[in-house]
Amino acid sequence: MEKTLVSPALCPRVEHAFEILGKKWTGLILRHLLTSTCRFNEIQSAIPELSGRMLTERMKELEEEGIVERTVIPARPIKIQYSLTQKGRDLEPVIRSIEEWAEKQD
Amino acid sequence: MEKTLVSPALCPRVEHAFEILGKKWTGLILRHLLTSTCRFNEIQSAIPELSGRMLTERMKELEEEGIVERTVIPARPIKIQYSLTQKGRDLEPVIRSIEEWAEKQD
Repeated sequence: MEKTLVSPALCPRVEHAFEILGKKWTGLILRHLLTSTCRFNEIQSAIPELSGRMLTERMKELEEEGIVERTVIPARPIKIQYSLTQKGRDLEPVIRSIEEWAEKQD
Repeated sequence: MEKTLVSPALCPRVEHAFEILGKKWTGLILRHLLTSTCRFNEIQSAIPELSGRMLTERMKELEEEGIVERTVIPARPIKIQYSLTQKGRDLEPVIRSIEEWAEKQD
């Protein structure tokens, strides 16, 4: 067998990255956030099949991963906004390359 | 809200791509195949925690997706080799970009 170029030290992190992005709706939510800072309801209405409960779950996961930032704007009524952190914005090449790949397929 | 750049027509395909890559071990198997054509046992010994049953399942899925090609070499004993199809090789930028992203994280 040829020498492998896979770096074993990187594997768990790459696996974890694939795992995050592989969860249902996560890719779509991130693609949406790449274009703008969004309120919860805006994301939900942009993805009609996504339930509020599921969106809450995904946003919590993405916040815990340091990919999404939640900001409370002290207005009346209070506004909750979501935006990508730097770590989240760094996912743009990944998302763009997967889009390009998907575009190529019939 | 700003105009979204997400193309709705692309969504199911992109979601599906994320789904394929998000399955446990798939990213690792593909990274391995990017470096060489491999026999089943070679892939298995390169990823020690991956069971034969799980590898069989993943290879079947990847074959069904047209990402991996299975070749039977009529030798004694018969050899089964796996390699990436063009569609599979086209995943290289996706895998490389996710590696770069994972490398950046602490």
